[in-house]
Amino acid sequence: MTKVNVVEIGPRDGFQSISCMQIPTETKIEIIDRIIASGVKHIQCTSFVSPKAIPQMSDAAQVASYCINKYPDLDFFALVPNFRGAQNAVAAGLKKVTPVISLSVSHNLNNVRKTHEQSMDEFKQIMDTFPELTLDVDIATAFGCPFEGRKTTPELVDFVGKLHDKGIRNFNICDTIGVAYPSQVRDVFTTLLKTFPDTHFSVHIHDTRNMGILNSLEAVRVGVDTVQTTLGGLGGCPFAPGATGNTATEDFVYLLNLEDYETGVDQKKLVEAAKYEVEKIPGNYSGHHIQISVEQKGF
Amino acid sequence: MTKVNVVEIGPRDGFQSISCMQIPTETKIEIIDRIIASGVKHIQCTSFVSPKAIPQMSDAAQVASYCINKYPDLDFFALVPNFRGAQNAVAAGLKKVTPVISLSVSHNLNNVRKTHEQSMDEFKQIMDTFPELTLDVDIATAFGCPFEGRKTTPELVDFVGKLHDKGIRNFNICDTIGVAYPSQVRDVFTTLLKTFPDTHFSVHIHDTRNMGILNSLEAVRVGVDTVQTTLGGLGGCPFAPGATGNTATEDFVYLLNLEDYETGVDQKKLVEAAKYEVEKIPGNYSGHHIQISVEQKGF
Repeated sequence: MTKVNVVEIGPRDGFQSISCMQIPTETKIEIIDRIIASGVKHIQCTSFVSPKAIPQMSDAAQVASYCINKYPDLDFFALVPNFRGAQNAVAAGLKKVTPVISLSVSHNLNNVRKTHEQSMDEFKQIMDTFPELTLDVDIATAFGCPFEGRKTTPELVDFVGKLHDKGIRNFNICDTIGVAYPSQVRDVFTTLLKTFPDTHFSVHIHDTRNMGILNSLEAVRVGVDTVQTTLGGLGGCPFAPGATGNTATEDFVYLLNLEDYETGVDQKKLVEAAKYEVEKIPGNYSGHHIQISVEQKGF
Repeated sequence: MTKVNVVEIGPRDGFQSISCMQIPTETKIEIIDRIIASGVKHIQCTSFVSPKAIPQMSDAAQVASYCINKYPDLDFFALVPNFRGAQNAVAAGLKKVTPVISLSVSHNLNNVRKTHEQSMDEFKQIMDTFPELTLDVDIATAFGCPFEGRKTTPELVDFVGKLHDKGIRNFNICDTIGVAYPSQVRDVFTTLLKTFPDTHFSVHIHDTRNMGILNSLEAVRVGVDTVQTTLGGLGGCPFAPGATGNTATEDFVYLLNLEDYETGVDQKKLVEAAKYEVEKIPGNYSGHHIQISVEQKGF
C-alpha cells in the first residue's frame, strides 16, 4: 500500500476565512483535538499574521503552544507571511513554518505586499536567522491567478528553480483559486518531481470548480505523497477573489481509504469532527461533506 | 480529440427531486431551451410516472411534445417505470425510453415495487408491443445500495447478461446513491465494455460524496463515451435514502473541455443556464457550480 500523508490545514486556511465571528480558542483546540483523534499527524495549526489584517488568527501563539505541548510527537507548522511572523512562530515553539510566495506577481503584491525579490530576500533572512527552522514554502496561484490568468508548468518550474537555488527544499504547490485541471496537475508534478529529485512537494487544491478531490488524487497518482486538505472543506483566501473552500479532508480520506492508500486515518472519526465543526462554525463549506453518511450499510 | 456525449437528465432526475413547489411547465421548457442553446444534444426531458407518486412530472406529455416538435433532430427520451409509462411516452411521440431496474432487489422493490423477474417481464412487454422503440435501461444501485450495501462487478455483469439475453443493447449504469469509487468505476466499465462489445453503456453518477466528477471522468477514461449529468447538479432519488445531487453538467463540461475532449458544448452558456435554474428553482444543488466564475481572467 502506498502511504499518503494527510495534512490538515483547516485551522489555518479554513479558520482564517471566517470573518463573521471570532472562533473561540477553545473551539479551535477542540476541533484540532478531534482531528488528531482520527489519526491525522500533520497539522497547519495557525498563521502568525498581523492581528489587524486577520483578527481570526490573533490567538496564534496560544494555539501553537497548546498543540506542541500536548502532542510533542506530531508535525505542527504555521503559515508566516513575513520575518516577524517567523520570529513569533519560533517564539511559540514551532520548528517548521510556511512562508508564502505567489507565482503570480500581482497576487504576491496583493497577498503579502511584496515583489518576488522582496519575498525571496525575506526567506533568506528567515533562513539565516533560524538555521534550524524548516521552511515549507507555499507557492500560491501555481496553476492560475485571478489577476493574471492561467499559469504554465515551465513558469512554475523556473520559479521553483530560483527558490531551490536559495536552498528551499520543501514546497507546497497551491491551486489558490481552484482552476487546476487533471492533465495540468499531472504535468506540473511529474515535471517538478523529475526536475528536483532532492526536494519534497505537497499539493493544496481549492474546490472552487468541484475538482478538488479529482486534482488531489491526480497528484497522488503521479507520485506526490503529501496532500493538504481542510476539515469540512472550509477555506478561502482573503486576498484572492473567487477562492472558496479547499478539498475536504473527510472526503479525500474516504476516497484514499477506498483506493487502498495507507492514510492511518479513521474516516468515521473525521466525519464526526467535521459535523462538530459545521455545528460550531458557520462558514463556506465545500461540497457535500456533511451528507456523508458513514452509517449507511456497507459504506 | 475523443468525443463525449453529454446527456442532460436534469429535467427528469433533477426536477423530480423538487417537492416544495410545482415547477411551471414554461420554466422547465425555458431551462431546456437554454441547455440546448449551449450545444447539448441529448436530453432526458421528463418521466412518465404516476402523477400521484410524483406530481412534479404530471406535465410529462406536454414537455416531451414541446421538445420533439421544436427540436426534431435532437435526442430526447424519458424515464418510464412501467408499461403504462412506455405507452404514454410513445403516445407523446418519443422514440426512446428509459425503463429502470435496480441491481439491488431491495431497491427495485422500493423504487418500482417489482421483483427483478417482474421488471424483466415488463421490459419484454414493452419491446413486444413497441418493436421500434429504443430501450436505454437504467441499472440503478449498480455500485451500491442503501439497503444492501456495496455491489460487485461480477454481480453487475451477471445481471447485465440477463438483460442482454433478452435483447437489451443500451444500458445506463447508475451510482444512485453516490458510493462508487474510481477503481470500482474502472473495473465495472472495463469489464462491461469487454464482455458486451455489441452493447452501449453510459454512466450516471451522484455526487453525494463529492466524487461525481472524478468517477464520471474515470468512466470516460476507460472508454465510456456517454455521460449523464444534471444542470446545477440538481437531483436525487425519492426512493433511495441519502441520494443527493448528480454530477453537475456545467462542471463536467468545464473539465472535459479543459481535458481536450470534444463535447460541442459552450460551457459559459451552460453556466448562464445553471444560474437561471438556481434562480427559478430552489433545490438540492451539487457543490460549487454557482461559484463558477467564467468571467475570471483566463479561465
